Amino acid sequence: MKLSAKYIAVFLMPLLFSTVLIASEKKGVAMETATVPVSPQSQACISCHSIYTPGIVSDWLSSRHAKITPYDAMKRPALQRRMSSNNLPDELLKQAVSCYECHSQNPEKHKDNFEHFGFRINIVVSPNDCRTCHSVEVSQFSDSKKAHAHKNLMGNPVYRALVNSITGVSRIENGRIITEKPSDKTLNETCLACHGTRVEVRGSKKVSTPIGEITVPHLTNWPNQGVGRENPDGSLGSCTACHTRHAFSIEEARKPYTCAKCHYEPDVPAWNVYKKSKHGNIFFSEQHEWDFDAVPWTVGKDFRAPTCATCHNSLIVSPDGEVIAERTHNFGSRLWVRLFGLIYSHPQPKSGNTTIIRNKDGLPLPTTFTGELASEYLIDEKEQMRRKQVMKNVCISCHSTSWVDGHFEKLENTIKETDKMTLAATKLMMEAWEKGIEDKTNPFDEPIERMWTRQWLFYSNSIRYASAMTGKGYTTFKLGWWELSNNLQKMQDMIELKQDRLKNRDKKVDK
Amino acid sequence: MKLSAKYIAVFLMPLLFSTVLIASEKKGVAMETATVPVSPQSQACISCHSIYTPGIVSDWLSSRHAKITPYDAMKRPALQRRMSSNNLPDELLKQAVSCYECHSQNPEKHKDNFEHFGFRINIVVSPNDCRTCHSVEVSQFSDSKKAHAHKNLMGNPVYRALVNSITGVSRIENGRIITEKPSDKTLNETCLACHGTRVEVRGSKKVSTPIGEITVPHLTNWPNQGVGRENPDGSLGSCTACHTRHAFSIEEARKPYTCAKCHYEPDVPAWNVYKKSKHGNIFFSEQHEWDFDAVPWTVGKDFRAPTCATCHNSLIVSPDGEVIAERTHNFGSRLWVRLFGLIYSHPQPKSGNTTIIRNKDGLPLPTTFTGELASEYLIDEKEQMRRKQVMKNVCISCHSTSWVDGHFEKLENTIKETDKMTLAATKLMMEAWEKGIEDKTNPFDEPIERMWTRQWLFYSNSIRYASAMTGKGYTTFKLGWWELSNNLQKMQDMIELKQDRLKNRDKKVDK
Amino acid sequence: MKLSAKYIAVFLMPLLFSTVLIASEKKGVAMETATVPVSPQSQACISCHSIYTPGIVSDWLSSRHAKITPYDAMKRPALQRRMSSNNLPDELLKQAVSCYECHSQNPEKHKDNFEHFGFRINIVVSPNDCRTCHSVEVSQFSDSKKAHAHKNLMGNPVYRALVNSITGVSRIENGRIITEKPSDKTLNETCLACHGTRVEVRGSKKVSTPIGEITVPHLTNWPNQGVGRENPDGSLGSCTACHTRHAFSIEEARKPYTCAKCHYEPDVPAWNVYKKSKHGNIFFSEQHEWDFDAVPWTVGKDFRAPTCATCHNSLIVSPDGEVIAERTHNFGSRLWVRLFGLIYSHPQPKSGNTTIIRNKDGLPLPTTFTGELASEYLIDEKEQMRRKQVMKNVCISCHSTSWVDGHFEKLENTIKETDKMTLAATKLMMEAWEKGIEDKTNPFDEPIERMWTRQWLFYSNSIRYASAMTGKGYTTFKLGWWELSNNLQKMQDMIELKQDRLKNRDKKVDK
Repeated sequence: MKLSAKYIAVFLMPLLFSTVLIASEKKGVAMETATVPVSPQSQACISCHSIYTPGIVSDWLSSRHAKITPYDAMKRPALQRRMSSNNLPDELLKQAVSCYECHSQNPEKHKDNFEHFGFRINIVVSPNDCRTCHSVEVSQFSDSKKAHAHKNLMGNPVYRALVNSITGVSRIENGRIITEKPSDKTLNETCLACHGTRVEVRGSKKVSTPIGEITVPHLTNWPNQGVGRENPDGSLGSCTACHTRHAFSIEEARKPYTCAKCHYEPDVPAWNVYKKSKHGNIFFSEQHEWDFDAVPWTVGKDFRAPTCATCHNSLIVSPDGEVIAERTHNFGSRLWVRLFGLIYSHPQPKSGNTTIIRNKDGLPLPTTFTGELASEYLIDEKEQMRRKQVMKNVCISCHSTSWVDGHFEKLENTIKETDKMTLAATKLMMEAWEKGIEDKTNPFDEPIERMWTRQWLFYSNSIRYASAMTGKGYTTFKLGWWELSNNLQKMQDMIELKQDRLKNRDKKVDK
Repeated sequence: MKLSAKYIAVFLMPLLFSTVLIASEKKGVAMETATVPVSPQSQACISCHSIYTPGIVSDWLSSRHAKITPYDAMKRPALQRRMSSNNLPDELLKQAVSCYECHSQNPEKHKDNFEHFGFRINIVVSPNDCRTCHSVEVSQFSDSKKAHAHKNLMGNPVYRALVNSITGVSRIENGRIITEKPSDKTLNETCLACHGTRVEVRGSKKVSTPIGEITVPHLTNWPNQGVGRENPDGSLGSCTACHTRHAFSIEEARKPYTCAKCHYEPDVPAWNVYKKSKHGNIFFSEQHEWDFDAVPWTVGKDFRAPTCATCHNSLIVSPDGEVIAERTHNFGSRLWVRLFGLIYSHPQPKSGNTTIIRNKDGLPLPTTFTGELASEYLIDEKEQMRRKQVMKNVCISCHSTSWVDGHFEKLENTIKETDKMTLAATKLMMEAWEKGIEDKTNPFDEPIERMWTRQWLFYSNSIRYASAMTGKGYTTFKLGWWELSNNLQKMQDMIELKQDRLKNRDKKVDK
Repeated sequence: MKLSAKYIAVFLMPLLFSTVLIASEKKGVAMETATVPVSPQSQACISCHSIYTPGIVSDWLSSRHAKITPYDAMKRPALQRRMSSNNLPDELLKQAVSCYECHSQNPEKHKDNFEHFGFRINIVVSPNDCRTCHSVEVSQFSDSKKAHAHKNLMGNPVYRALVNSITGVSRIENGRIITEKPSDKTLNETCLACHGTRVEVRGSKKVSTPIGEITVPHLTNWPNQGVGRENPDGSLGSCTACHTRHAFSIEEARKPYTCAKCHYEPDVPAWNVYKKSKHGNIFFSEQHEWDFDAVPWTVGKDFRAPTCATCHNSLIVSPDGEVIAERTHNFGSRLWVRLFGLIYSHPQPKSGNTTIIRNKDGLPLPTTFTGELASEYLIDEKEQMRRKQVMKNVCISCHSTSWVDGHFEKLENTIKETDKMTLAATKLMMEAWEKGIEDKTNPFDEPIERMWTRQWLFYSNSIRYASAMTGKGYTTFKLGWWELSNNLQKMQDMIELKQDRLKNRDKKVDK
């Protein structure tokens, strides 16, 4: 963050100077100076944007993209490589990866391509554009549930009923609650803030900027950085969900604050549980001494306790340089069981696209309401064992086999017991349905149904997370067993109270 | 934190030595040594207090007040100035701003002025005392809602009813809940911990200290550091609410931990939302590389993502040195709409003193219970547009105009929809009042009324905060739309259950 | 973390070389190199474990145990000593405290002692083993409530009823909730994750490790690091609960993240309250400039605001080197009143073992259900005053006597008022019992009883914590007075609704 924007603007623009000096001072590491050529197109971008949006220019200057050419990056030893593609167009090879390099990719696919001060650029840089240099990562990601996060939610009629029940605006008419369909804007700020919106081009519009009125494509559901965003080039996902523009820092992606944006209580309390775990305890106490930028990432040398990335997707090696876990951007690929989000836990789905699943009742759910698996769509036991071993390999870097086995036995038990507690709640709700106390048409829009939803979406989920990540005590009072057992009691009380009301009403009708 | 207190005590006291050597080692910055004269009075203070309260002496030694004289501070270039006054009494000019300089200001106004080992000092240093050097900041602050935070709460009969309903001690008599008026001590620890107490002098008292019994003024509602404290000199506010004694660090004030002391869930979840935002994600991951002490504060150079202070009050410049936003200590002055704290959102009030507002029903509220604005007391659309532009200027340092416009359109929609959800709850509560289920005399002391209060004070507020600050997903399950819609369902259920009870009771009475 | 594991394995194993070079680079401090002999047994451990569990070898390398011999550690000036024992077996004196030194202590007491590749070692290192070098700390700890945390919970029939009501799996039979006894595994993950399990040896078992099948003792309820764990050598406690294996860092133990693992909302919200306090605000803003490793720990020099350890157990000195507070590992020994965990606050129990307490009703509780003290088992007023003064001495390092007195007067008031609010809830519950609405046999297994439990275990507790630690505003809305008063209203509503149901049912029976 040392080069002033003015310097760049004044110096580069008139002379079309082709190098950028970047001085970066990082965490005690010695001063590092890099000279990387910048394309004339990107120099033009920088010359204006260093004045009008200086923050993102500074961001980019601090990024690896500004410090090394793809040509040099490709020459690194295999384990140290941060880009996976081997065949790049010549024009991208020997210069910085800068504004124009990314925003001009695949123009023919981009419905958001437009002319901007003499250049044709895309507004949205999609995973398919990042693929040019990061092909393996994008392939892995594109198969994941994350890439399908929008589709999996909005294209599933059961989840869609949940979404609509929660986020629609209500009004009172004759003492009754009438709920409308949710607005696109509210969906963008609630579920789809994380799951991603569908971004489409709807003609163009004029915007007033500091340099006058300019015409840009009009994008729907924008801005949005949800991980399963549907992009104007037809691709799925948003790399900036975790690798924030325009620094694309691996340090940031490896720190748990990034995952915490979406994965927190009450429905996905990974962050909350991590904070209460021994691993989190060590991370928060000692992170200032660790190296979050090293590739590969070495157990014991670069870090002392895992963050989310360690267990779920980073390339991890031992101090000897032996690979403990391969890098993956399919975030489910080290997971054998799905702990959260659905009514009951179940083996991971085979496909990142979960809308294709059908349970015995014909619903697009991995289990029935009483917990029977839709096995055809889920990974088998052999694949489960394989994945579990990948995860265990990470644990075994620091823990004895006996310790690790004991840990996972506890998790297995927790999965079974929490599923039983969900089943108990389901039976109470079914009783309410049978007695006509609430209406089963939409299972999410009445108070007892909401209590049932809490049972699995908040409480059983949380307990399983805490068990998987040893989030001490989170399983007890904070969204844990206290709530799980209390919720059953409260459901029963409400059923009895509402049943009496129903009977009293019936009596009146009888008269 | 290098000079030992003993050194100061032993060295300064006997010789009345007039300089203090301060060695400060900060974040990789080279060792900095400063020589600033200290007044004989302050030397006397230090000589004892370095023994008896060494912590605060160390605090002061680490502060800017110990490192530069007002005379030198005033000579700084305009944008780098940290003190705004231009005319200072001569005796303050050429020495450190130390104990006696602050604690002896305006003695004639201070009812807490007393003799302490040969010096007349005030216990409380008030904004009016800080005004001597920081006149512009104190003027701005004094006009703000923050300075009036005590008065605005305790001097408003509607809010006062809420305060009393929450914080009064209850007992059970014949199965009924009887609630007393809250005690001053509990008020000091609850609402007034943040809003500030009224600190008055009630004679003097003796206290046992390590050096024997001494006599000091007896202060009511003390200690307290609430931002709208009423001080013994008649002034309003407490600068130490954000600039902690006795280091008065700008670094601290710019970090979100400071604002987080008061602005957190469930009623003001700015902190919680920030943590879940992309901005917070970047701050927590990279703050160790930023400069929180630089004045002015440069986008891209000193920081990469905003903290609370960036958007709400700091002096922000571009890497070129152009002013993006002027410093302000009137924390509402960049705000066009008031998102929280009241039943419905509304344009910011014109005056920091909101007790003067009257709605159509004659109540001191910016809207009626059904949402009609008390427009006369609120800023008009033109002023709203002007303020919104100030805020947008900060956003545009890093985001395109189109992105920023899209963001604020979402916020506008959220404001409208959450206000509708509050109106729905209000209608249910009014139904409960009409049917005699609960009593409207105090709108905060019965269960359905409390559910209504949750609707706006916890849920609508939270959703609006999350929308304003892009706190991903906080709007969904965590105090968001899940609760907003579920709360309506629960209100309706309770109304029906309590109504039946009422009817059954009436029937019995009929018999 | 500089020495590669391979280096150690390859270099040490063949040559049985007796020294380890450790290069540690910490927080700007100059490079420090230490040469400490390592025993042949530990060299053997390291030679394999640096390959198979490299993380823990790196941990140990970063620890003080790898950098100084007990012989040298004992020669430090009294205030700087980190080990308290003065008589050590000769063989431990002049070498690093490494794998074998700790895992081979007191083999005759360890039922988990077994042969492992030619060495007899214990799996669990217990406080009694740490006692060899840290005798004073272990003696203090062993008398504390922390050491008895398992026993105090599981050996008390009242608490045991609470534990069983919360953590047992339920099923629905004929619309009724049937709750089983909790499983050992779930207990290990809930209450006993913090309180500690009973770890016993149940024969041996074979485990599959990367180097083939090996036989190890089969431990019950393992892994577990709860602070009151019952160990296979009969001792109580787990030092690693706070001093994580195998770095045993004092920095970590002094940071609040460590305490936060167990002490957080809703039942013990020390962490949550600290975050919202001025002390926490300063810690989070400035901790990067503090020294968490210095012994003794100097106010003003090493830190500017207290963490948990400062007030509760660290050795604190003034910049002059005068002792402000002695180190203690009996964490209750600076406490005069017990704010949390029980129905009413009360003077601290005399003994760490609280199962011996009997109240007037013969129950093992420090008060009756209506608040009468079991004084015989609790410290007297004189001891309370003595302890309070120890705590005040810490406060007075930075605050005036008058300020500190005012603070503690507020706390006294809060204790009284919250106990009254608990009493009000107790009376409502007793009314429910008397009217037959709920059944008093188990006071924790029905909805109104759970509301009563919330009143003291969640709300009164939280308010008292926030008062003790000035956790601004936590006392108001967040688990504070809002909930405390609302809970009473809701209890009354439920009593009335369920009473009507009972009457209607009775009427039907009458007919």
